[in-house]
Amino acid sequence: MSSPSSIQSENARALASSSRSPLSASQGEDDYSDDGLEIQDDELLADDPLNENGGPNERFTFPRKEQAQDKSFASRFLSTPFSNSRHATPSPSRSASGIIRAATPTTILSYLNAASDPSAGLQDSKDASGLDWYVEGPGRRVGYDNLTAIDWIYEYSKERTRLRQLSTNSPGVLGQLRLAADASQIWWVLVATGLAVGGIVAGIDVASDWLGDVKTGICSNVQDGGKFYLNRAFCCWETNTYAECADWNTWAAAMGMHNKFGSYIIEYIMFVCFSVLFAYCASLLVNKYSLYAKQSGIPEIKTVLGGFVIRHFLGAWTLIIKSLGLCLAVASGMWLGKEGPLVHVACCCANVFMKLFGGINGNEARKRETLSAAAASGISVAFGAPIGGVLFSLEQLSYYFPDKTMWAAFVCAMVAAVTLHASDPFRTGKLVLFQVTYHNGWHAFELVPFAIIGIIGGLYGAMFIKLNMRVAAWRTSNSNPFLKRPVLEVVAVAVITALISYPITFLRAQSSELVEYLFAECVDLQDDVLGLCKAGIANTGVIFILLISALIGFCLAVVTFGLQIPAGILLPSMAVGALYGRVVGLIMEVWQRNFPNFIAFGACALEPDTPCVTPGTYAVIGAASALAGATRMTVSIVVIMFELTGALTYVLPIMVAVMLSKWVGDAFGKRGIYESWIHFQGYPFLDNKDDAPVPDVPVAQVMTRFEDLVCITAVGHTIDSLQDLLREHRFRGFPVVNEPREATLLGYISRTELQFALGSATSSSRSLPSTTECYFQHQPLADPSVTLDLRPWMDQTPITLSSRSSLQLTNDMFQKLGLRYIAFVDRGVLAGLMTKKDLWLILNEGEEGKVGHGAGVLREELNEREDERGLLGHTRDFSLGSVGSRDGEGMMNTVAVKHTKNASSAESTRLEPTLSPVDPEVLLGNEPGKEVDVESDEDVPLPLELAELPTAATFSKTGQT
Amino acid sequence: MSSPSSIQSENARALASSSRSPLSASQGEDDYSDDGLEIQDDELLADDPLNENGGPNERFTFPRKEQAQDKSFASRFLSTPFSNSRHATPSPSRSASGIIRAATPTTILSYLNAASDPSAGLQDSKDASGLDWYVEGPGRRVGYDNLTAIDWIYEYSKERTRLRQLSTNSPGVLGQLRLAADASQIWWVLVATGLAVGGIVAGIDVASDWLGDVKTGICSNVQDGGKFYLNRAFCCWETNTYAECADWNTWAAAMGMHNKFGSYIIEYIMFVCFSVLFAYCASLLVNKYSLYAKQSGIPEIKTVLGGFVIRHFLGAWTLIIKSLGLCLAVASGMWLGKEGPLVHVACCCANVFMKLFGGINGNEARKRETLSAAAASGISVAFGAPIGGVLFSLEQLSYYFPDKTMWAAFVCAMVAAVTLHASDPFRTGKLVLFQVTYHNGWHAFELVPFAIIGIIGGLYGAMFIKLNMRVAAWRTSNSNPFLKRPVLEVVAVAVITALISYPITFLRAQSSELVEYLFAECVDLQDDVLGLCKAGIANTGVIFILLISALIGFCLAVVTFGLQIPAGILLPSMAVGALYGRVVGLIMEVWQRNFPNFIAFGACALEPDTPCVTPGTYAVIGAASALAGATRMTVSIVVIMFELTGALTYVLPIMVAVMLSKWVGDAFGKRGIYESWIHFQGYPFLDNKDDAPVPDVPVAQVMTRFEDLVCITAVGHTIDSLQDLLREHRFRGFPVVNEPREATLLGYISRTELQFALGSATSSSRSLPSTTECYFQHQPLADPSVTLDLRPWMDQTPITLSSRSSLQLTNDMFQKLGLRYIAFVDRGVLAGLMTKKDLWLILNEGEEGKVGHGAGVLREELNEREDERGLLGHTRDFSLGSVGSRDGEGMMNTVAVKHTKNASSAESTRLEPTLSPVDPEVLLGNEPGKEVDVESDEDVPLPLELAELPTAATFSKTGQT
Repeated sequence: MSSPSSIQSENARALASSSRSPLSASQGEDDYSDDGLEIQDDELLADDPLNENGGPNERFTFPRKEQAQDKSFASRFLSTPFSNSRHATPSPSRSASGIIRAATPTTILSYLNAASDPSAGLQDSKDASGLDWYVEGPGRRVGYDNLTAIDWIYEYSKERTRLRQLSTNSPGVLGQLRLAADASQIWWVLVATGLAVGGIVAGIDVASDWLGDVKTGICSNVQDGGKFYLNRAFCCWETNTYAECADWNTWAAAMGMHNKFGSYIIEYIMFVCFSVLFAYCASLLVNKYSLYAKQSGIPEIKTVLGGFVIRHFLGAWTLIIKSLGLCLAVASGMWLGKEGPLVHVACCCANVFMKLFGGINGNEARKRETLSAAAASGISVAFGAPIGGVLFSLEQLSYYFPDKTMWAAFVCAMVAAVTLHASDPFRTGKLVLFQVTYHNGWHAFELVPFAIIGIIGGLYGAMFIKLNMRVAAWRTSNSNPFLKRPVLEVVAVAVITALISYPITFLRAQSSELVEYLFAECVDLQDDVLGLCKAGIANTGVIFILLISALIGFCLAVVTFGLQIPAGILLPSMAVGALYGRVVGLIMEVWQRNFPNFIAFGACALEPDTPCVTPGTYAVIGAASALAGATRMTVSIVVIMFELTGALTYVLPIMVAVMLSKWVGDAFGKRGIYESWIHFQGYPFLDNKDDAPVPDVPVAQVMTRFEDLVCITAVGHTIDSLQDLLREHRFRGFPVVNEPREATLLGYISRTELQFALGSATSSSRSLPSTTECYFQHQPLADPSVTLDLRPWMDQTPITLSSRSSLQLTNDMFQKLGLRYIAFVDRGVLAGLMTKKDLWLILNEGEEGKVGHGAGVLREELNEREDERGLLGHTRDFSLGSVGSRDGEGMMNTVAVKHTKNASSAESTRLEPTLSPVDPEVLLGNEPGKEVDVESDEDVPLPLELAELPTAATFSKTGQT
Repeated sequence: MSSPSSIQSENARALASSSRSPLSASQGEDDYSDDGLEIQDDELLADDPLNENGGPNERFTFPRKEQAQDKSFASRFLSTPFSNSRHATPSPSRSASGIIRAATPTTILSYLNAASDPSAGLQDSKDASGLDWYVEGPGRRVGYDNLTAIDWIYEYSKERTRLRQLSTNSPGVLGQLRLAADASQIWWVLVATGLAVGGIVAGIDVASDWLGDVKTGICSNVQDGGKFYLNRAFCCWETNTYAECADWNTWAAAMGMHNKFGSYIIEYIMFVCFSVLFAYCASLLVNKYSLYAKQSGIPEIKTVLGGFVIRHFLGAWTLIIKSLGLCLAVASGMWLGKEGPLVHVACCCANVFMKLFGGINGNEARKRETLSAAAASGISVAFGAPIGGVLFSLEQLSYYFPDKTMWAAFVCAMVAAVTLHASDPFRTGKLVLFQVTYHNGWHAFELVPFAIIGIIGGLYGAMFIKLNMRVAAWRTSNSNPFLKRPVLEVVAVAVITALISYPITFLRAQSSELVEYLFAECVDLQDDVLGLCKAGIANTGVIFILLISALIGFCLAVVTFGLQIPAGILLPSMAVGALYGRVVGLIMEVWQRNFPNFIAFGACALEPDTPCVTPGTYAVIGAASALAGATRMTVSIVVIMFELTGALTYVLPIMVAVMLSKWVGDAFGKRGIYESWIHFQGYPFLDNKDDAPVPDVPVAQVMTRFEDLVCITAVGHTIDSLQDLLREHRFRGFPVVNEPREATLLGYISRTELQFALGSATSSSRSLPSTTECYFQHQPLADPSVTLDLRPWMDQTPITLSSRSSLQLTNDMFQKLGLRYIAFVDRGVLAGLMTKKDLWLILNEGEEGKVGHGAGVLREELNEREDERGLLGHTRDFSLGSVGSRDGEGMMNTVAVKHTKNASSAESTRLEPTLSPVDPEVLLGNEPGKEVDVESDEDVPLPLELAELPTAATFSKTGQT
């Protein structure tokens, strides 16, 4: 099997041109995880022929479809930890029977049955509306595997077909109502999401506030005012300052300790204990019940919205765990925020509600539109900034964001904000703690410190990203003592955080309270707990403490972001920014007070009554700059800050600071923190937003060339030979050509569809013999009852480009059309192939300045990155392979080797364990020409005469591989 | 020439397959306007080979480029009315010499010279970096004609090449600075635009306020307070009410008339006179100096941003006229607003500033990005809503709006808003007159009237659009007595408006003042001039007058929008909406006061001290609903209203009203007012935003089939035969195939480039004989000094699709990639072609439910629409042809006939008058098979054997035609 000739004898009829390459032979040790394919009935049924020959009597009933699903209603919602994921992976014959159960008397469905269950009579289906699948169209699809890329164009055409079907089948007034009900589905989902998110956030706010205050003391009844379930603010609601509050007892007081030092020690211990307890619980929840609930979830959401399928990532279980975990994590006082994770919570809500509506749930593209809209509500309630939320979703998260999605996002964000406003968790009428209004404007000379703050923000962001990535790399390395004990790691960080934080007043407060104090104007602070508003020389001490706090906060945030705990980075960044911003503000204030006649302060001299410098505004600008440095967003941050401060006055300085911060940050590296994590985790996210420098090379230099492709010839195959082909090669799909030499491209068939079609043909219902001939081309003389026409499963109109096109154009096509692969064709002849994954690899390595030499670089890169690749940390072993193998059609040999070796994690149940892994050494030992001819980029267009010669497979890792 | 055989003998070597069609012969009567092509040196020079063989020693100097232009610096800014547009249309030989002047010693330029001026030695250029143009790439371009579509993909690749060039040529620190300077260009433009827009708007506000007040009286000195140049507000600054104001004298008082009736008459007359005078001046300005300054300009801006070239539309002259005209038009008291036109003003500003920066100005795509950003500043200052402006640009105007553009738009909008705020034209601290703050919230029962207002808004919008379109159609018809006298028409409308408005207090005020009063809460109105805050039964009268006013306003707005005067529709819509909104509010108020115990008003009974119903808020919601009905925007309107009222409180009702309004409006027709105008004017705007129902047909049914295409064979042509071909056919471009029968697609050459290449080859500098052989394929044996290789000018990698693809996919490709044409290729063989224009025709007719039968419909449609097609009204005769002939590569035969007949307008100087128009009757008489075989859609894929048979050219009007 490792020798080329053996493959050719086995698959004598397959045009396995890359079988001449020893590398492609090493693809044999696949785990065939695709055999356990989860067939999505919805997807199949939503397909239909392109034209409407059947007319309006083709009824298309939704309830039937759902009956066909073998999941219970409840299991749709809570499927992650309790249900065995194996039940969702039927064998081909089982899924075929699943479709039989779904059968209805309608033409479409009968056609679909006919094709997927050929025993029902192929001849009939051909006579009915079935002809179209044979003649034209993008081919039928089985559905998406977990961790694969979706085909946007296909999804949208599916949706259009569904709508057309629906409107054809819905005559009269009742039909109009039905159409309206269908169109209103998204609004129900979004309004429900908005309400749910508003409610959940109010709950999290109350719970985390109470838990956070429990760290320091408890509300106990002196009169009837104090109830243990009140947090400090409500406990002391009627007193002006906390000092006067008799109802609130610190732990020391509650224990009867009145010695000052003893109290301190007791409170310190209680503080640390509670902090660690909360952190431990949060981490345990995440580890035990839903690993997807960890961290902020934003990198994953970006990836999902970019067109990637991650099952259960947005499930109800994730929602519950993330919400509970957030309360605990925030209360633990670690340097994390709830703002980013709330986006994940919002998306989970939307996803759960979507399951009620087949119209949306059945279409991956519409799902993503709805999720984009729902994401806005997360930020909306996190910052009390509905417009900011919409823009955050638009700027940071979304891949495809048409106008109607913007409106949907806006509605969802507003509903959530109004819900939160109505529930008013802080009883202040403010949406968030740190909403603020300033009384004074700013002066022109202040633009200089504002600009300095902006530059500091950029430096903060760059350093934060760099260090955080270092820590993340170290965390996954073997030198990390907590490698297999993530909960312990969280506990360790929590202990350190608590130990450090308690002695320093600024750090002892919750981040959101800290930010509130730092933003405030001194005149508004009734209760200067933190001592921010001292005068004169006392400020030196404050400045020092602020600086120390900023530094400690920075370090703790670096360590904390990436732990297995629900944790966002937005609020910690804001806190650090507010700290250093306030420092700059205090310096300016002291300077101005001591040297009021300095020429720059001339403007202040004109208004001697009002304070010249408002340090709180510096904190706001600092927070904005830090956010911009870390996330590299611009508009959203300014709008969020604008909505927090509510005045046009400070927008200009915020803009200046944000812009400078972004520029400075970009100088150190273009990726924001989320993009860095996407890159680090190896998520196949193809950014369609920034103008990433695409190497300026013809695509012929980087595509997988025809010589290295495993193609299928249109005629001459049997079921057996195709199944052999599938067994030999792990490729996600195969181009179909007319004949091996002058290989005119006929279409492209995905592994999933081919597998399904072959599976159902050989299943008990049809049971064609394995020697049945298979065609990908119209064979007028073939008897359809004893042959297998695979055209319906083939994409007969794949998107093609000339191989002389630029890589840039290829990139545009992938990004803007949401393709999964492009075939390169010169005058009809297949010249090469490129998948989304290939492009992703090229672009990601391109940034490191290595690309342009073809696939040789990509192979090097693989070896380098093996250690850090991994989807969702804990399941690294599993995902290590899956990133390389199942997403976006692309896969790499070396990863395949790794994959089989490590396929042992809890989540890898979808891998087929019955297949014995081939020893990679045996295969790798058989690669004589591995490094030869890496630079042979000149032979474009293809010298087809050479196709039969045994050339070295220099590019077999790009393209289809 | 009109007989097929004669064409074949003339162009013996051209594969003029459609020459067998008599219809295509009628294309002969073209005016060859392309001969007078304006060569853009910038565009040529910005092109360069794809790879960097030349290395860093290829210096690329900008100043040289500009020297080569034969326009003076000043003429770049003020070129419209004063400069003869003919000077910009050099003959081919002249443009070739123009390029010689542009020559520099750099490799790229020398290459460019060599190709455009072949006498310099083709061999040299081939040896240098020139090879690439021959082997690969999208081909060189000459530039865009006026009224043609741009190629987004090409423009972006040009920009990337320029940047790469720049960074290669900019080593060291100085180079870094140069790069930074290049990157900062857009910011200079935008900041300058923001400042300019803020300033201009402040000026317009002040001027139109003063002029508007001059209609009623004048500030004359009683003490030293009154100066004639003060408007009423400033004149009476120190008095509480206008009644107490002694400085302000009405015209009657100024003339010494104290009789009440006499005063009324005098004031009435003065009011009407001034109104008409202002309107007349505004219209005269527009008519005389810059017709592009008329109306709102938003439909045109949308079209331009969608990728269409309209020269001088955004010129300095337009800017000046539009600004002056706006002051006068607003002051005239007609039912128009300055808000929409301010977007045009902002775009003009940006365009003028862009001319200072070659890096942006030389690239049509970047220009459009910048314009998108600048447009935001217009709305920003119009409504004092910077975020609303950004979203307006995003939602309503822009075609391509990446994140960086959003940030740019935000910066521009903010700078403009801050500038306006700083100049504070109203001296109130408010950005716009009608900014308002409410003291009370709303009650749940009010959602019912709010919803009713929303529905009224939708009805208003639908009716407005329908009637306005009727009026517009009537205006261009022969039954319009003012057909050739647009200024008179404006005067007539102004007279009617003034006569009606004066007696009705609500209408006498400026629209913005009216809106201000209607929005206001009664407690905030110190001076209830309009009598809005009466109590009890007196309200009946007010309600009646408000209703009458709304009706009159509606009718006047319908008539006014579309006149030749700068006029927007946003404010009139808001005014009408505020009027009917206030009516609903007053009704609710009266109802609640009279029946306070009605069950729905229960919530009010709880707060007896605060007024239950605030009619002002109903006015705001009415304004929002009317805006939504007219423009069909959603987010932008809510955000603008949110920014006007400044509180989250009223966002939910506004959202409800806007949403209902949009739904109701959409039920009557999907197009908003701007889209309706685009449709009416026949602008080739391909909306990439809405999910317009694309007919669900295979593209093979609607594309121009191969039989109907005029193709060029790769070999066998001479300069003469190609020039004949150009003369015979008006097509914007020609596919190039290898041989007539098995027509493998090699590339596509645009008319412009072919013409230019032939022109420079035969020009005095190279002077190849007209019998020189031309190739589009590599000819190893050809002597380059005596033959002409046209490959550099050909797009050798045109985007292709399978002809079995769906029209939907084709539409996606056009929209998302910004293509100009797609070739349909089956296994390498050219099957058909579709241009952006064809698609536009199909989609626009598709909405009328006529499409799906192929091009026969399109021909019918042409005859129908001839009467209403026209770009920019006044120049209809010219544009009638140009829409059909020069945009987006497409053209129609019947339009061509019209074109030649009517080519007589002032702007048609670019048409070549030396060519005698062929009598269309002669040609049309020779069309025997015109109507034959319209329905023959079945022959897909092409029966190539039939290609030589004389078939009827049933589809010659789609596709390339």
